[in-house]
Amino acid sequence: MADYKAPLRDMQFLLNDVFKVAEQWAELPALAELVDAETALAVLEEAGKVAGRSIAPLSRAADEEGCHWSNGAVRTPAGFIEAYATYAEGGWVGVGGDPVYGGMGMPKAISAQVEEMVNASSLSFGLYPMLTAGACLSINAHASEALKQTYLPNMYAGVWSGSMCLTEAHAGTDLGLIRTRAEPQADGSYSVSGTKIFITGGEHDLTENIIHLVLAKLPDAPAGPKGISLLLVPKFMVNADGSLGERNAVSCGSIEHKMGIQASATCVMNFDGAVGYLVGEANKGLAAMFTMMNYERLGVGIQGLASAERSYQNAVDYARDRLQSRSPTGAKAKDKLADPIIVHPDVRRMLLTMKATIEGGRAFSTYVAMQLDNAKYSQDAETVKRSEALVALLTPVAKAFLTDLGLESTVHGQQVFGGHGYIREWGQEQLVRDVRITQIYEGTNGIQALDLMGRKVVGSGGAFYRVFSDEVHGFVDQHGAELSEFTQPLSDALQRLDAVTAWVLEQAKHDPNQIGAASVEYLHAFGYVAYAYMWARMAGAAQQSSGDEAFHAAKLGTARFYFARLLPRLDSLIASVKAGSETLYLLDAEQF
Amino acid sequence: MADYKAPLRDMQFLLNDVFKVAEQWAELPALAELVDAETALAVLEEAGKVAGRSIAPLSRAADEEGCHWSNGAVRTPAGFIEAYATYAEGGWVGVGGDPVYGGMGMPKAISAQVEEMVNASSLSFGLYPMLTAGACLSINAHASEALKQTYLPNMYAGVWSGSMCLTEAHAGTDLGLIRTRAEPQADGSYSVSGTKIFITGGEHDLTENIIHLVLAKLPDAPAGPKGISLLLVPKFMVNADGSLGERNAVSCGSIEHKMGIQASATCVMNFDGAVGYLVGEANKGLAAMFTMMNYERLGVGIQGLASAERSYQNAVDYARDRLQSRSPTGAKAKDKLADPIIVHPDVRRMLLTMKATIEGGRAFSTYVAMQLDNAKYSQDAETVKRSEALVALLTPVAKAFLTDLGLESTVHGQQVFGGHGYIREWGQEQLVRDVRITQIYEGTNGIQALDLMGRKVVGSGGAFYRVFSDEVHGFVDQHGAELSEFTQPLSDALQRLDAVTAWVLEQAKHDPNQIGAASVEYLHAFGYVAYAYMWARMAGAAQQSSGDEAFHAAKLGTARFYFARLLPRLDSLIASVKAGSETLYLLDAEQF
Repeated sequence: MADYKAPLRDMQFLLNDVFKVAEQWAELPALAELVDAETALAVLEEAGKVAGRSIAPLSRAADEEGCHWSNGAVRTPAGFIEAYATYAEGGWVGVGGDPVYGGMGMPKAISAQVEEMVNASSLSFGLYPMLTAGACLSINAHASEALKQTYLPNMYAGVWSGSMCLTEAHAGTDLGLIRTRAEPQADGSYSVSGTKIFITGGEHDLTENIIHLVLAKLPDAPAGPKGISLLLVPKFMVNADGSLGERNAVSCGSIEHKMGIQASATCVMNFDGAVGYLVGEANKGLAAMFTMMNYERLGVGIQGLASAERSYQNAVDYARDRLQSRSPTGAKAKDKLADPIIVHPDVRRMLLTMKATIEGGRAFSTYVAMQLDNAKYSQDAETVKRSEALVALLTPVAKAFLTDLGLESTVHGQQVFGGHGYIREWGQEQLVRDVRITQIYEGTNGIQALDLMGRKVVGSGGAFYRVFSDEVHGFVDQHGAELSEFTQPLSDALQRLDAVTAWVLEQAKHDPNQIGAASVEYLHAFGYVAYAYMWARMAGAAQQSSGDEAFHAAKLGTARFYFARLLPRLDSLIASVKAGSETLYLLDAEQF
Repeated sequence: MADYKAPLRDMQFLLNDVFKVAEQWAELPALAELVDAETALAVLEEAGKVAGRSIAPLSRAADEEGCHWSNGAVRTPAGFIEAYATYAEGGWVGVGGDPVYGGMGMPKAISAQVEEMVNASSLSFGLYPMLTAGACLSINAHASEALKQTYLPNMYAGVWSGSMCLTEAHAGTDLGLIRTRAEPQADGSYSVSGTKIFITGGEHDLTENIIHLVLAKLPDAPAGPKGISLLLVPKFMVNADGSLGERNAVSCGSIEHKMGIQASATCVMNFDGAVGYLVGEANKGLAAMFTMMNYERLGVGIQGLASAERSYQNAVDYARDRLQSRSPTGAKAKDKLADPIIVHPDVRRMLLTMKATIEGGRAFSTYVAMQLDNAKYSQDAETVKRSEALVALLTPVAKAFLTDLGLESTVHGQQVFGGHGYIREWGQEQLVRDVRITQIYEGTNGIQALDLMGRKVVGSGGAFYRVFSDEVHGFVDQHGAELSEFTQPLSDALQRLDAVTAWVLEQAKHDPNQIGAASVEYLHAFGYVAYAYMWARMAGAAQQSSGDEAFHAAKLGTARFYFARLLPRLDSLIASVKAGSETLYLLDAEQF
């Protein structure tokens, strides 16, 4: 496996040349004092070092070793404790955390890049700080001041970690069915009882304490999703002076044996009258949980991108090195018995598909991150409203599209290795196994597509969609002159997406099945158009930038590849959407 | 995991109603006496029992246990020895073998179904008899009568097994680079020395002897692929009376640790002056090897189908059972807290995609198998020529398209399970890991696509393609009246494939990169049109058949789904092909 090198050059290009993100920060008072282009670069360079030196070298062996469960305790693989300590000491767990409680306060546009680096180094490792950051977001947004002061500083510092306890054996997508109970106690706390499954980082040996956020039902709660509350349940009780007290009645019953992310402990968690504290209002637990969902789902999308990037770096290295057969246009490495396989058109097709979707995905996730920053920090109500619409619309696309393309890319990256790609020691097959979970957890990609098509597009009567579409039309109008090579096909693609969006909005009025029938292909169609927008912007920035010609020429070349060979995927997706729901319902359940 | 049930009903429908295969057999003297529709049914029922009862129950545990290597010996997982003995005693290893040497002599149209069953039960298990059958094909076609009499009977009986030793560490796709040597000895045998990797079943404990077919270079052989010879190297020498003699100088240096097919021993094989016998002519080893390639590659395609079928059976079972959320059109299981997930449009989309591509793939592989039977057994020179052209053209499509769709299907089948799909105990993730090798070995799918586009389509100046295209046009003309719902879109699709084929033929004249640039997407486009032809034929047979209405209605419903939602994938594939090779070569190797 090649050494992991953080793609700092591309990140800088995006932040500085494409999105000019420092201009955004200067307009947001909470960020203006904390970060500028220079700080951002220093932060990213440091994160790249930690990821590349301390975490990436552990990934392969940690996959082989996995986590160990014994009598309720979980031991992570060799080296994780030390690497986590290094990561935590650098302040990286709290990179996006609230500075009031000790967080670094970086905008999401920066922490998104850090997330990519840590997850490219090891997706299993990256999950521990990611879950902690997610729990902190919910606590910071909804918990009482006392809870915030008690828990956030140690969580941001990485001394304590977080977990999100949602799923039960019979309740995954359909959280309304959960059975975990929370009984109010005389002292204002709650007694939490129930069993949760698939709890990432529910137990491990990396931190002194683990803070669980648990979905549960209070007595007499309404049935279904409107009767769910959010409870904070620490593994160890915290004394008034901040020291750790008794062990709480929460324990890890077992860990799962999985396809991948072997070094991430996926736990069955038993709550047996554990002490918990209500976060936010009773029966509004789902809303409190959804505060962090947009961040977390973008983060999962970035995991897909990260796995793809790691696979790409390995594949490029191998393709430059491996000698096999001759180029169709005649021998290139005449002094050798065969040419490096990077000369072959189909190897290039695979590598360019990876490169184009990775760089498109990095641009798109950075763009969504900037909308999150606007929504959180802008003092202009219109800007906040607009950014919130974009976040709502684009988050499910980022989660599902980046991870679906993450699978495609890691499969290509494995394929480039031929037979060696199937052998564990080369590391490429692990990336396929690891990335596969990103399409499943945090709401399956099918659920993301339903969220996009049903709740966001149809649910807003098309309004959220128009915010995005208007922006892209505006870009086309503004840059059509100097960028017509790219804005022309972008404009065509957008008009077709506009049309199919209108078609689904119309159809959904009389056929409730149309939303689910269209959803996955619609999300992919949306994704390809969004990436086309990103590639047009990147091509524009590359044309205008001076210096580093090889980099900018590669950007333009990859943009051309994207428009010529990948954007046409839109054709089939739109045709499938417009085929409608009818043929999904010709068979009874027994006829399958 | 659901119990595996051999899809006998669908196989019968294909053989009897769609392809009327007994009519073909009656015209081929070698088959006419051996097999009719009744025999075929009995054979398939028996194979289904062995697969379902003796093999399928081992698959999960065998994946966990894997193979064990110690001091050159390989132990297969618990139960494999007994299951293999049962399989061999039934004569299944030699199901397609030459009756002169004790084979069962079944046509490929039958043995293809048996292959599907055994591979659906356990792909790892299925590889042992598959490699043996492949080795037998080469021996039977090219070896001396003495070698045939010495080796074939015990191999068909499953008492001895076979392996194919091609790849070396530096020579995978490019076999011209191999370094293994064969030195002629005074007694007419050869001394074989070298190291082979990725040797499936190179060593194991299932049989008394293992017969290796080894690619090697004789002294003074021409460089490259034209200097390769094929040697038969037994693990144990065979005495004149047929009993086993001394151990030959061939040994297993280690086994690989892989993504999947854990119960299949993938061996490093060391030949240290081992005694070998020339099979066929000196320097014509590749041709002798290719005799079995068409069979073997179709068999790998069937492995993709088999994995998909197993995943589908599990997914349907789960989707009927798992309760989660309500149907978009209102509660269906009103007495329960939620509906079975098979009511949801996107779950149906995934299941129908699996069903339509599995049944299309089964029809297509059966169709190709019938061409193999014609090519082998027909006494009519025109029929042989025509079938050989179809075999040459369609084999790479069958290998690559069935396995690419095998990955897609197993990923869908895993996705239907949500989080449980990622957990090993449910078995769905194993099928994804297992099927992934089928896209890589026996010539990667990229190499299959090059073979189709370069050697077969362009290499024959379009002649092989026209044989296929003319047949489909003929079908459209003949059945346009009663089947227009299906022949109309089939005809449109075929015309577009005709046009893009002509386009590539023209382009390839002046741009050698166009073949590799078009190849993978072209192969997929070809595959979707070929499946459309199969679905039109199946729809026609279903319309005409009487009785079993639920089955025939499901066939028609699935055909409609295929034409409405999957055939449109053609649009994008053709657009990508026509984008040409230019954007593949805008970057230097250093710019990736």
